[in-house]
Amino acid sequence: MDSRTGLPVVGMVGGGQLARMTHQAAIALGQSLRVLAASADDGAALVAADTLVGPHTDLDALRRLAKDCDVVTFDHEHVPGEHIRTLAAEGVVVRPGADALRFAQDKRAMRERLGELGLPVPAWRPVTAATEVAAFAAEVGLPCVAKAVRGGYDGRGVWMLSDPAEADELLAAGVELIVEEAVQLRRELAVMVARSPWGQVAAYPVVETVQRDGICVEVLAPAPGLRPDLAVRVQELAIRIATELDVIGILAVELFEVDGEAVVVNELAMRPHNSGHWTIEGARTSQFEQHLRAVLDYPLGETTPTAPAVAMANVLGGRMDGMGVDERLHHVFAADPGVRVHLYGKGVRPGRKIGHVTALGPAMATVRDRARRAARLLSEGVADD
Amino acid sequence: MDSRTGLPVVGMVGGGQLARMTHQAAIALGQSLRVLAASADDGAALVAADTLVGPHTDLDALRRLAKDCDVVTFDHEHVPGEHIRTLAAEGVVVRPGADALRFAQDKRAMRERLGELGLPVPAWRPVTAATEVAAFAAEVGLPCVAKAVRGGYDGRGVWMLSDPAEADELLAAGVELIVEEAVQLRRELAVMVARSPWGQVAAYPVVETVQRDGICVEVLAPAPGLRPDLAVRVQELAIRIATELDVIGILAVELFEVDGEAVVVNELAMRPHNSGHWTIEGARTSQFEQHLRAVLDYPLGETTPTAPAVAMANVLGGRMDGMGVDERLHHVFAADPGVRVHLYGKGVRPGRKIGHVTALGPAMATVRDRARRAARLLSEGVADD
Repeated sequence: MDSRTGLPVVGMVGGGQLARMTHQAAIALGQSLRVLAASADDGAALVAADTLVGPHTDLDALRRLAKDCDVVTFDHEHVPGEHIRTLAAEGVVVRPGADALRFAQDKRAMRERLGELGLPVPAWRPVTAATEVAAFAAEVGLPCVAKAVRGGYDGRGVWMLSDPAEADELLAAGVELIVEEAVQLRRELAVMVARSPWGQVAAYPVVETVQRDGICVEVLAPAPGLRPDLAVRVQELAIRIATELDVIGILAVELFEVDGEAVVVNELAMRPHNSGHWTIEGARTSQFEQHLRAVLDYPLGETTPTAPAVAMANVLGGRMDGMGVDERLHHVFAADPGVRVHLYGKGVRPGRKIGHVTALGPAMATVRDRARRAARLLSEGVADD
Repeated sequence: MDSRTGLPVVGMVGGGQLARMTHQAAIALGQSLRVLAASADDGAALVAADTLVGPHTDLDALRRLAKDCDVVTFDHEHVPGEHIRTLAAEGVVVRPGADALRFAQDKRAMRERLGELGLPVPAWRPVTAATEVAAFAAEVGLPCVAKAVRGGYDGRGVWMLSDPAEADELLAAGVELIVEEAVQLRRELAVMVARSPWGQVAAYPVVETVQRDGICVEVLAPAPGLRPDLAVRVQELAIRIATELDVIGILAVELFEVDGEAVVVNELAMRPHNSGHWTIEGARTSQFEQHLRAVLDYPLGETTPTAPAVAMANVLGGRMDGMGVDERLHHVFAADPGVRVHLYGKGVRPGRKIGHVTALGPAMATVRDRARRAARLLSEGVADD
C-alpha cells in the first residue's frame, strides 16, 4: 500500500506495451505501476516512474520488484514457474498464480487439461520423433501443425509441416513439441474474461481476429455475423476455463471457428492481450483497468461496448525509408481526426508491433477500413492500398 | 525529438493532476511527458518517468525542463511572463506564448482586451481605494465582486463585497483589485477550444458547470436545455477569443448564462481545465490529447461526444475518518460498475480536488445522479445524500 495515497501498488513483470498501457490505466486508479523491465528502453520503462531493470528469469530481480507491492502480475508468460512458487512461498501475492499460469506457459499441459474438462480442442499429440509425427499425420492428414510446448508467440514456435520429416530438425534442436491437426477453420475468434479472487467474472464480447503470417493484424469487435447463441457459448467456455483453471486477472482465449456452429480452443493467455486493445476506447472498462481490478480483487467494471462496431489494426514495423513516424502521424491525424492512435515507444523493426489504431462507429465496414488505412500509413508511410 | 522513438518531447511546467492526465494522453501518442514538479510527491511526479523537481518561478529550473524539449507548455498559469519571454528569446518553443498567457494571468488585462474586442463581459473597473469601489457600487449596486488581478483560482482571490469598505483590508494588504458587477446569472457555462500554430481550431460542446463555494463540483455535457443557437454563439465566441489572443493549445472559457439568451465571459484558462475532464471518456479526443496535438501542431482530433449525456463530478477531500480511499473505491465499483474513476495521487485535505468521476449514458438525470453518488462515496465514505 502506498502510504502517500492509501492505494495499492501493483508490480508487473515485463516492460513491453502491455505494461505501458496497464500503467496508463493504473494512473486513473490513483496508482503508479511498478515495472520490472528487461531494458531501460522498454516501452513501459520510458513512461513509468517506478521502473526496475532486470531479467524476468532472475529470482532476486523478481524479489526486488515484489518488495512493497500488494500484488505482482505479468505482461508476458515467460517467468519460470518455480520462481513464482518461491515468491508465493515467501508471502508475495502473485496473480495469476503458478498453478494457473502453467496452462498459459505449457501448451501440452493446456491441451491435456482442456481435454480432461471435455472442452473442444483440435486433435493433438505430444511427439518425440518424426515417426510419431508420421503416425499422427496418418490419422489427421497433412499438413499438420507442430508447436513448441513453451515460449512461442506471434507465429514463433509454430510450424506447418507438409512432411513429418520436417519435425526432425526441431526435435534434434531440443524443441519439445506437440503436433495438432490443421483445423479447417472459417476464421479465428477471441474472447476475454476477467476473474477476481472473490470469484467474480466479467466477459467481453467475442471478437474476430485477423492474422497474417501468424501475427494478429486486425481485431473486429464484435465478431461480424457471429451467431448469438454461439457467441454466448464461447463466453461460457471462457468463463468455465477461467474458473476451472483458477485464473485471476484477464484470460484471453483464442479460438478457431470451424463452421459457424462450433469452435475449438487454440491458445490461452493470462494477461492483457492484443485481441483486447480495442477495449481502451471500445468498451466501458478497458482490459488494462479490468486486469488491475481483477488482480486487486476490486469489483469488476462494465464490459459494455461503447459503439456498435470497433476495429483495431496493429501497426507493424514496415518501410523505414521516407517519412519518419512523426510525419506519418501528422498525415494520419489529418486524414482521419477520429481515429485513435496508440504508439508503444519502440524502435521500428520489420514485423514488430510498434502500435495500434482503433476506429469506432456505426458500421464495421467503415471502421475497419479507417483503422486499416491509418495503420498502413503509420507502417508504410503510404496511404493507398 | 526523442531519438529512440522519433517522436517529440513535450515539457509541462507544473506537476498536478492536469500534468498527470496529460502524461496519460502523451503515452498513447508514443511520448512521455517531461514534467517540472514543485515536489516529488506531486500527482504527475508519482507517475511520469521524466520528472524534474523545482519551482516554476526559477528561470534555471525552467531552462532545465526546456532542454531537449520540442515545446514547453503549462499545467497552471503561474509562471512569470518575463521568464517565458526569456525562454522564448533563448529559442525555446513555448505554447501558449507569453503574449497570450498574459490574458489568463492578469484579469485586468483580460477584461480590457475582451472589452476592446467588443465581447460580452460584466461591468468592471480597476480600483485602488474603497472610495472607487463605492463609486462603482453606486452604478451597479451591491453586493459587487472584488477579484485579485493575479493568482486566484477555485474561489480563492474572489470576494463578494456587501460594503465597499470591505475592500480596504485587501487593498491595504497590497492586493491589486478589479471590481465587477454581481451578474444575475441563470447558471454557469464553459466551453473549450483548441487552436494550433497552423491556425486550426476545434471546439467542444458547451457544458454547464455547477459551483459550490466557488469550486466546481459538477460538469454536465452538453449543457442541458441550452438553446442550440446560443450554444453555437458561445463556441464562436471562444474561437474568436482563441484567435484574437493567439492562444495555442486548449483555451477554456468560463461564462455566465444571464437569461437563456445572453452570456458574459467570466474567466479564461489556457491549459486543460476541470470543465473538460468529461472529455476523457465523453469525447472522441480528450482535452489532454488535444492540448498536446495543438501545442505540437498536429492536426486536431474529433471533439464529437461519445454518449448523449456525460456528467463529471469532482471528488473533494471530505471526511477522512472511517473507510480509507481504497475501501471506498471498492464500494464505488461494487455500486456502479460503469462509472469511470480518476484519482490524482494526492493526499486528502478538506475541499481539495483529489479526483473525479464520470458517468455516461442516454439521459442526463441518470448519469448526473450516478456521478454525484460515486463522488460523494469517495469524498465522504457514505453513499446516502
